[in-house]
Amino acid sequence: MKINGTMLIGKEEVRGTEGTMRAFNPAIGAVLEGDFGVGTDAEVNRACLLAQQAFDSYRETDAATRARFLRSIARGISDLGDTLIVRASEETGLPKGRIEGERGRTVAQLELFASIVSDGRWIGATLDSALPDRKPQPRPDLRLRRIALGPVAVFAASNFPLAFSVAGGDTASALAAGCPVVVKAHSSHLGTSELVGRAIQKAIAECGLPEGVFSLLIGHGNTMGQALVSHPAIKAVGFTGSRRGGLSLMRTAANRPEPIPVYAEMSSVNPVFFFPSALDKKAEALAKGFIDSVTLGVGQFCTNPGIALGIEGDGFQQFSRFAAEELSTRSAATMLSPGIHSAYRSGLERLRQAKGVSNLAEVEPGQGSCLGTPALFAVTGKQLLAEPELAEEVFGPASVLISCENLEEMHAIAEQLSGQLTASLFIEEQDIEAARTLVPTLERKVGRIIFNQYPTGVEVSYAMVHGGPFPATSDSRTTSVGAGAIERFLRPVAYQNMPSALMPAALQDANPMKIWRLQDGQLERQ
Amino acid sequence: MKINGTMLIGKEEVRGTEGTMRAFNPAIGAVLEGDFGVGTDAEVNRACLLAQQAFDSYRETDAATRARFLRSIARGISDLGDTLIVRASEETGLPKGRIEGERGRTVAQLELFASIVSDGRWIGATLDSALPDRKPQPRPDLRLRRIALGPVAVFAASNFPLAFSVAGGDTASALAAGCPVVVKAHSSHLGTSELVGRAIQKAIAECGLPEGVFSLLIGHGNTMGQALVSHPAIKAVGFTGSRRGGLSLMRTAANRPEPIPVYAEMSSVNPVFFFPSALDKKAEALAKGFIDSVTLGVGQFCTNPGIALGIEGDGFQQFSRFAAEELSTRSAATMLSPGIHSAYRSGLERLRQAKGVSNLAEVEPGQGSCLGTPALFAVTGKQLLAEPELAEEVFGPASVLISCENLEEMHAIAEQLSGQLTASLFIEEQDIEAARTLVPTLERKVGRIIFNQYPTGVEVSYAMVHGGPFPATSDSRTTSVGAGAIERFLRPVAYQNMPSALMPAALQDANPMKIWRLQDGQLERQ
Repeated sequence: MKINGTMLIGKEEVRGTEGTMRAFNPAIGAVLEGDFGVGTDAEVNRACLLAQQAFDSYRETDAATRARFLRSIARGISDLGDTLIVRASEETGLPKGRIEGERGRTVAQLELFASIVSDGRWIGATLDSALPDRKPQPRPDLRLRRIALGPVAVFAASNFPLAFSVAGGDTASALAAGCPVVVKAHSSHLGTSELVGRAIQKAIAECGLPEGVFSLLIGHGNTMGQALVSHPAIKAVGFTGSRRGGLSLMRTAANRPEPIPVYAEMSSVNPVFFFPSALDKKAEALAKGFIDSVTLGVGQFCTNPGIALGIEGDGFQQFSRFAAEELSTRSAATMLSPGIHSAYRSGLERLRQAKGVSNLAEVEPGQGSCLGTPALFAVTGKQLLAEPELAEEVFGPASVLISCENLEEMHAIAEQLSGQLTASLFIEEQDIEAARTLVPTLERKVGRIIFNQYPTGVEVSYAMVHGGPFPATSDSRTTSVGAGAIERFLRPVAYQNMPSALMPAALQDANPMKIWRLQDGQLERQ
Repeated sequence: MKINGTMLIGKEEVRGTEGTMRAFNPAIGAVLEGDFGVGTDAEVNRACLLAQQAFDSYRETDAATRARFLRSIARGISDLGDTLIVRASEETGLPKGRIEGERGRTVAQLELFASIVSDGRWIGATLDSALPDRKPQPRPDLRLRRIALGPVAVFAASNFPLAFSVAGGDTASALAAGCPVVVKAHSSHLGTSELVGRAIQKAIAECGLPEGVFSLLIGHGNTMGQALVSHPAIKAVGFTGSRRGGLSLMRTAANRPEPIPVYAEMSSVNPVFFFPSALDKKAEALAKGFIDSVTLGVGQFCTNPGIALGIEGDGFQQFSRFAAEELSTRSAATMLSPGIHSAYRSGLERLRQAKGVSNLAEVEPGQGSCLGTPALFAVTGKQLLAEPELAEEVFGPASVLISCENLEEMHAIAEQLSGQLTASLFIEEQDIEAARTLVPTLERKVGRIIFNQYPTGVEVSYAMVHGGPFPATSDSRTTSVGAGAIERFLRPVAYQNMPSALMPAALQDANPMKIWRLQDGQLERQ
């Protein structure tokens, strides 16, 4: 499949006229062949209006059709074969193996949502029987189902060119809910975006769906982002990226004449808590695992462990020494883009200059473009309590070790943390009671609490929460990974005394969809 | 029980020092005996900090304790007997019978949430088994439960002194979810608020719960409201009231360092659509029912039908005539407060002056204080399309009849409406196909679609949606009445490889709570 440098507006290819953009290969520090035309408000408007037109029809497609559509997208992505893998690898500097793994996850996500659509629990079908003889007033027949919110704007992430991009988790869950999707391609992987966008466009045609179910836009982040989120047809926003970007979209969405929800996954330092017995027992193995996690994917995961806490003593000292040694054996590697690389360098510089922060280990940059150098810093708990901004995210393969005077100080730091995606605890049997005192704080602070494992690696399953209190995300009530992601794009509608001739299938007496329903307060599936 | 004019901060009675407020009896136009001390930021702060301190302990109370607590509040409210009924009637001008009915609903709400807490579905327990042999990576054990968001600020409504006030739907659902609650009493029923607040305070003591689970504040709407919503301990807001008040809280909440969700139920005109065959068959009965709904509770319900649409012709003309005649037989009646009365009079004046609006019928005010005069206006669909603000809410016993040229125009008006709590359709068999074309639009516009009944009257049940797109509410994904209200105050937390010694009961292998859980994608309740 050829890359034409065009936007996909419904079933059309539209070439943007506001200048051009080019993709960039960070590994060789060179732009890639081919111009992408930049779109204007006119294309934003056209994509949104098409999505609006498609909405009523698309949201009422039956489960089989919608599941087939999601599987057809998955197949289309697989069918792109090496063309996709090569291009995504070129545009991101990520190794082909990683891209292949991510493609697997993207396909699995689409398939998970296909099965969720069929299962029908997402509808939340709820029936309260009429009580015509109730005194003083009869009770009417009441039935509730959840319907899609409306067209969704999706902002692709830089660090997951497939799994959180054009056909990633936000798109898959919004489409599963019955929402048309307008994606703004991430400027750092435009070719990848076009390839995947075409796979969706093709699946729409194959399944006979209205063209407005999907559009792909190319534009400058801020201008086009604001236009898209401001458009009256858009009813929700999915975003993965920087805190600044997320906050900007949140503001725009809140200030619309009709405010809309924004699901922004922003920044997290994913604290790792090492408890004394765990450190006593296996400081070296823990240190190695920790550095693996810090440097995985050149530290460019939302769940990268940016801080680690331990209690002063031999165990934590050993751990720190092993971690520094281990880090020194790692190599600098290509980061996703010059922008991310430069932000990482500034972040390192900020830590190097910070009062009370010592640099335990740092890898030499070596020769190459956009090379992220693993680095390890140390600071006391007291210092961190005085300067909480030392715990702010530095996106890349760096982490800060925090030595706490005692458990109380570790607890105080946890209490001072802002919202996070994850927290990890390394414990042995003897640490259980100490860990128990920390869990309630962590429950208030994070979306996922992990025991004896590092935070990198996010399962796409039913019990996953990839979310957390602000500023980890804009909405702690939700997850952007896993089955729960579909909940973000639904709202309930009640029907009172609706004639059976008008009743949606999910609510008909005979339960023709054979889905789980709450009947007079009891779960049933006839 | 005596009314002392004090705030309830945890287990203390605290007399406000920022001047005093007095309650007002709108029926006789006179202030009621007794001063209420007005609170300051210091009391807001103290109440919020107590709530924060209570949170971790309260949210982990077992279902039996929490259900007992909610039932104990219900009993306490019943035990207030006539003292409560008389005071609430005096403070609102609502007849004692209506207050008794509302007390019944308030008690039933608390009992519904007690049973919901015990049922445990609100926890959303979800378990994904570990797959240690999975390739290339083993899958960890993942379990998810939902926990309470944190302390909730509740703003009592003027029009439901019991059911949407101190122990009303917002408070009941937040307490059920495990959230401490800080209520700002509505200034128009301060004595009622204190009586009910004491019942909650007593229930807390009886059940041995931490005092910070509940506080009741007295203060000036805007100042204290902003202080409360701005407080870092507050994690969500429940509000029922004017659009201006709701928007102001939404803005404050969005601009906090940590933005928080606001559940504001604001304004709605609850359109009623009369279809041709229904009008042909029973114009007179429909008109009588319509005027009953418009004038019920002096029009002071969120679900009051502020506009009604029909298609020009004999049927709608007859209906309009009957409705005008029927309205003329009704009497003016006491509104809730001088402020609401004066806003209603301004609203009527606006309609009287509006171009193209004719006054079909209006009741004489007669002698008395705060008398709301039923009124009926008419306008063409064309006029309304040109001036959509004619469909804005006038809170009180007034409605506007809209004569549409044809079904398309009725459809266009529906499409132009802003978000509403409800829409009602009156149809006969022959109208079904015409109604079918309108339903998708209404699904996008409202929270509850009603057939052949008027919108006033809201069931407290499982399938109720008392919500709807903005500006009916601030968050269309929720309901403030019925079982679904608890969902507003929860967020998911995932636990990865958690040792069984630390596992919350809801997620333990043996399912000791015997609740419904999603085990590897399948609903089970062993």
